[in-house]
This record gives sequence, structure tokens and C-alpha cells, in this order.
Amino acid sequence: MTSEQPSEDELVEALESQRSKTNERQIKDEFYGIYECVTCSNVCLTIRDPPETMTCHGESMRRVTTCSIDVQTPEVESVLLEAFGLPKAGIDICTCVINQRAASASQVADLLGYDRSTVTRYLNKLVEVGMLDRHQLNREDGGVVNVYTGLPIEDVKRETIVGFYVWAGEAAKLIEAANLQKEQQLDERSNTEDEEKPMLIWERLKESMRSRFEGSE
Amino acid sequence: MTSEQPSEDELVEALESQRSKTNERQIKDEFYGIYECVTCSNVCLTIRDPPETMTCHGESMRRVTTCSIDVQTPEVESVLLEAFGLPKAGIDICTCVINQRAASASQVADLLGYDRSTVTRYLNKLVEVGMLDRHQLNREDGGVVNVYTGLPIEDVKRETIVGFYVWAGEAAKLIEAANLQKEQQLDERSNTEDEEKPMLIWERLKESMRSRFEGSE
Repeated sequence: MTSEQPSEDELVEALESQRSKTNERQIKDEFYGIYECVTCSNVCLTIRDPPETMTCHGESMRRVTTCSIDVQTPEVESVLLEAFGLPKAGIDICTCVINQRAASASQVADLLGYDRSTVTRYLNKLVEVGMLDRHQLNREDGGVVNVYTGLPIEDVKRETIVGFYVWAGEAAKLIEAANLQKEQQLDERSNTEDEEKPMLIWERLKESMRSRFEGSE
Repeated sequence: MTSEQPSEDELVEALESQRSKTNERQIKDEFYGIYECVTCSNVCLTIRDPPETMTCHGESMRRVTTCSIDVQTPEVESVLLEAFGLPKAGIDICTCVINQRAASASQVADLLGYDRSTVTRYLNKLVEVGMLDRHQLNREDGGVVNVYTGLPIEDVKRETIVGFYVWAGEAAKLIEAANLQKEQQLDERSNTEDEEKPMLIWERLKESMRSRFEGSE
């Protein structure tokens, strides 16, 4: 009787085959595309002008059009905070300088109605991160004033996307590492399953599935 | 005298040319690569096996090796929360089911030492998001038990990366939109600058830069 019961592998297979295809979400966007190589494990994210002309290993890459996992809608402020460590006030200050092309801390504080000390703190952080440059200019009265300039807008566009990709590449690496850990745990579990694994759920599942298996034979 | 002063454009150019190249950070990672097309505006992020063999518009893509903006080090938990809306407990529960291959809510609660109601709430969310499947199994005593199964590990690896790319593509779109807005503001500003723009900082900058310009001629 026991030999007629489905094995654990057969059971998992039967359960997985039931997986509903309605879970699949369509990926369609004109701004970005996800492509995979038909030969290697390269998966890539393209933006701006996702072409149909990319190749990898000499063959056209295949566009990925479905995903079985739901994703959140990102918010620009939390993305910029996550990737560049800049909260809303920092972004406002950076945008203000870019729009003014050159500005001092007092000018930015006046324009945005922010505290002068807040503005100075973020301006220093923006220089450190590489989003703005600081220039010391001599005043007529002999003092010095710090004036900040932004990158040219074309450079801002390129550098923020490249920077975001660096962050996203690092994040993808962490997701992959977490999955690798799961895989290793699965391997270890299957090596030791005879002694240690709690078999109760499997016994119950097999019991419950038996009639279906028998019915299908 | 006025005609000898640098124009605003000359001034901006002079300031930008001073931009220190020490700001550039090297991008070198074996896990991911950033490539750009030499013809179109396509920039792409590749992972796993970043090849040197990708082409776009018939030509080898150029690897991007520097970035002038600093990025934060991502943390796997906040990335997963951001992209999939799953906090630590949700990830633990998902990993536990994947490692058990099939488990009921009570089994997961026992294994992790979590509250049964917390586990049930997250299991439902994980099914909704598409990370787990739910199966109703008949018990010998006539009742029903919900058993959860994970995706096969190979699918988990593919779907989490594709899902993360969908999220990252949407995020890149928002960053691009924010930059576009800056660009439009710059255009508007330069169209109306004669009447409205506060010229004070420019006057002061020109004053301060004049000697350097004259010195270089």
C-alpha cells in the first residue's frame, strides 16, 4: 500500500502543476524593457529606448513580458532616499540649485523658505555625494561666499540613472544571495531529511492526495 | 566695460570645467554591469553573467565604469519591503514555506515561533502577491486544512529578479520624469530671465570671476 502512495517529489510536482496561470502579470511599458539571453543567464533592464535590436551571444535577446510576482508602485521620494540617501528637503535644494544654475546658501534658503542651517547642511551633503559643486568666491568687501552649482542637466540625467543602476545592481546581488541561501537550505534539508525533517505534513498531504492520484491512474 | 564681462553661459561653463574629476567613483562588480549603446540612449543594467558580447544597433555596447554620484549601500530587507511590500516577517515566512516545500500556517508558526494570526495574515498576502500558492486539503476527520507551497527555487530566482526589475524600471521612469521637470523649469527660466530672474548672484559672480577671465586672455 505504501509503495502506491505518491512520493514527496510527485506530490510537490502535482501541487506545482496546479499553480494558476492567472497569477501572471503582463509587463508592458514603453519606457523600460526586460530582456534575457537565450544562451546565458544574463537578464537585463533597459531604459529610455528599449530596442528590439539587442543581442547577447550573437542572438537576439528575448523580451520578458510576464511576471508572476506583484510589485509595489515606487514613490520617487523614497527611491531617491533609498538610493542616494537624500530626503525630500535635500532633493528640493538640489533641484533649486540646478534651476538657478548657481546659488548661495542664503539664496536657496530665501527661495525655498527653509532654514539657512538646514540648507547649508544639505548643500554640504550634496557636494559630498557628488550632485553639486562648491566654489569659493571673493566678495567685494573682502569676505568669501560659497556658491554652489549643479551638474549640467544632461549630466544629471546620465549620472542619476547610472547611480540608480549601481544601487539596483547591488540590490539585485542581495536578492540573489538570499535566494542562494534558500537553495542551500533546501539542499541541506534534503540531505538530512530521513532523520530530522518533520514528516507530519507530508503524511497528511499524501493521505489527502492519494485518492486523486489513484483516480488519475 | 559690460561687454567684456563674461556672459552667464561663459560663467557656468567656467564653473563646470572646474568640476573635480576626483568625484568619479569606479564601478566594478563581477555580478552586474552597466552598458550603454553608442548610438541610441539605451542604458542597461545586466546581472549574473554580464557579458562583453552584448550589442545594440549592431555595435558592441560600451561598459560604464565610472559614476560621479555616490550611492547608498542597499539593505536586503528594505529593498524587499520597497519592491514587494514585504517586511522581515513576511520574508521569513516565505522562506520557511519554500524550505519546507509545503506547510500549513500552524507548522510555520511552530517553526518560526511567530503568532499563528500573524503567520496567517502574511501567508494570505504572499498568495496575493504571487509568491506562494494555497491548497485546500481534506483532513481525515472531515475538516479542511490550508497548505501553502512555494514556487520551485529556479522560478523564485527568476521571478524575484524580474519583479525587482519591473519595480526598478518604474523607479527609473520616476527619476527621469523628475529630471525632465528640472529641464522644463530651466527652459522656462531662460525664456523669462530678462524680466524675472534674480540677477544678484550673477552680478556678484561676474564681479568675482572677471579678474580670472581677464587674466586668462
